[in-house]
Amino acid sequence: MDAFTIRPDPDDPRLTERVVGRDHTGAEIETAVPVERPLTLYLNGQEIVTMMTICDYPTYLALGYLLNQNMLRPEDTVTAIDYDEEVEAVVVRTDRQTDFETKLKKKTLTSGCAQGTAFGDVLENFAAVRLPPEAVLRTSWLPPLSKAIHTAPSLYLTAGAIHGCVLCHQATPLLYMEDVGRHNAVDKVAGYIYRHGLTVHDKLFYTTGRLTSEMVIKTVHMGIPILISRGGFTAWGVSLAREAGLTLVGRARGKRFLVLSGQQRVVFDTPVQDGTAGAAEKDDT
Amino acid sequence: MDAFTIRPDPDDPRLTERVVGRDHTGAEIETAVPVERPLTLYLNGQEIVTMMTICDYPTYLALGYLLNQNMLRPEDTVTAIDYDEEVEAVVVRTDRQTDFETKLKKKTLTSGCAQGTAFGDVLENFAAVRLPPEAVLRTSWLPPLSKAIHTAPSLYLTAGAIHGCVLCHQATPLLYMEDVGRHNAVDKVAGYIYRHGLTVHDKLFYTTGRLTSEMVIKTVHMGIPILISRGGFTAWGVSLAREAGLTLVGRARGKRFLVLSGQQRVVFDTPVQDGTAGAAEKDDT
Repeated sequence: MDAFTIRPDPDDPRLTERVVGRDHTGAEIETAVPVERPLTLYLNGQEIVTMMTICDYPTYLALGYLLNQNMLRPEDTVTAIDYDEEVEAVVVRTDRQTDFETKLKKKTLTSGCAQGTAFGDVLENFAAVRLPPEAVLRTSWLPPLSKAIHTAPSLYLTAGAIHGCVLCHQATPLLYMEDVGRHNAVDKVAGYIYRHGLTVHDKLFYTTGRLTSEMVIKTVHMGIPILISRGGFTAWGVSLAREAGLTLVGRARGKRFLVLSGQQRVVFDTPVQDGTAGAAEKDDT
Repeated sequence: MDAFTIRPDPDDPRLTERVVGRDHTGAEIETAVPVERPLTLYLNGQEIVTMMTICDYPTYLALGYLLNQNMLRPEDTVTAIDYDEEVEAVVVRTDRQTDFETKLKKKTLTSGCAQGTAFGDVLENFAAVRLPPEAVLRTSWLPPLSKAIHTAPSLYLTAGAIHGCVLCHQATPLLYMEDVGRHNAVDKVAGYIYRHGLTVHDKLFYTTGRLTSEMVIKTVHMGIPILISRGGFTAWGVSLAREAGLTLVGRARGKRFLVLSGQQRVVFDTPVQDGTAGAAEKDDT
């Protein structure tokens, strides 16, 4: 029925909680809110970080976090990955010995700058990434893509207060991950790509969050050439995208959008006939 | 003309950058995006953290960060606070000797869990806070308050991709701070309150961001009894608000909202006559 390989499961009772309150008329109401849980990540027996997550895909989250932090390299072999629900921990084991102490030191220095993400190592590799120049974004894909994502069952529709990241091929969404923190949603996609060896050079990455430096860095690190958001841009995000040759599309609503980097990949194949002039809508998500 | 003691200055050329790109028709456009800069915070000569901020109020940000992290206590005397634009640093000095090493150790352990904010210390004090029971929120204040905030000149309207936090009295917004990270916007309000000795027991706090645990903890820590957002709730945010007796109003749009904690402070004085039935709109900001 639907094209998603993975999409959120709003019916999973662990992911939301029913709470009672009042609406604007004073009437008692019951509503759903998303539930975060702590998840402690160990790499080869050493504690790396405790994440707050909805915890629907703890193993993908663990792998994606380690990959996006450069603690796990694409050439590493993961020998075991175990999630223990009771102790709220996930343990990743690799063939290669990992240098935990150096990493944690770096994290201390940058933790305040980018919402808990250490970019020191990732930025080192940033300049070396080559995004495929032949990838294409047809503007005619955007309205059906956006519609498919926003009408799919999701925690966003059920409970709100959540971000979504979606790996897409042309106008078709493939992997749709949600989490309260947008960094977790993107890490879960990265973990899935790694675990299942997906090809990404011909894919698009769609996020409900803003096009910040963090989102740009992670998209480039995953090797995906095109990043799309209905949210807005930051100057640092635009500057990093231009440096890496990433196509950066923001304020995307319906058929409207702005592209501020990598415009040569965009094929403008939508006939323009709408009367709604002016810049694309701004957003603060 | 306007009631704000402080509000964003979208005309400040340091806060936004003009970038060139294309719109959905392929036409070349120029748009504004917010600019973040690194700001390194020192407390009594020791480096605490580097923050990415729009840097409009570096001294309020520094004070608010230290207060909300419990590194600066209300009874401390700040003997000097210096911002150096060239070296992108702000130095806070206090009478009391500070125990920098213990703090940074704690930050390492929790940095991944709450977007760079260390809550260990703050949660210790959380149970001791007594929010004033006599504070009131009249539902009739919400539409004019929301209108005053959203029509005020702001970086949000000029450049998007930004969060706002506003300290309000009844239907009047007083302090309106914006930043790319919502934690910076709230810290700048906290720093201003501290520096100018404002009374907050009769105030409301409005945020464009979601009602997460971080936002609830900081609001309680500042001693403000009522927190309002047009964004949604998380389960942990609701649970902490109930524990602290904070009035938590979310999904606030026009006259519609949900209140999930501290409902006894809400006076429902808006005559209900609108035909738009159903739950308040969800949001992912």
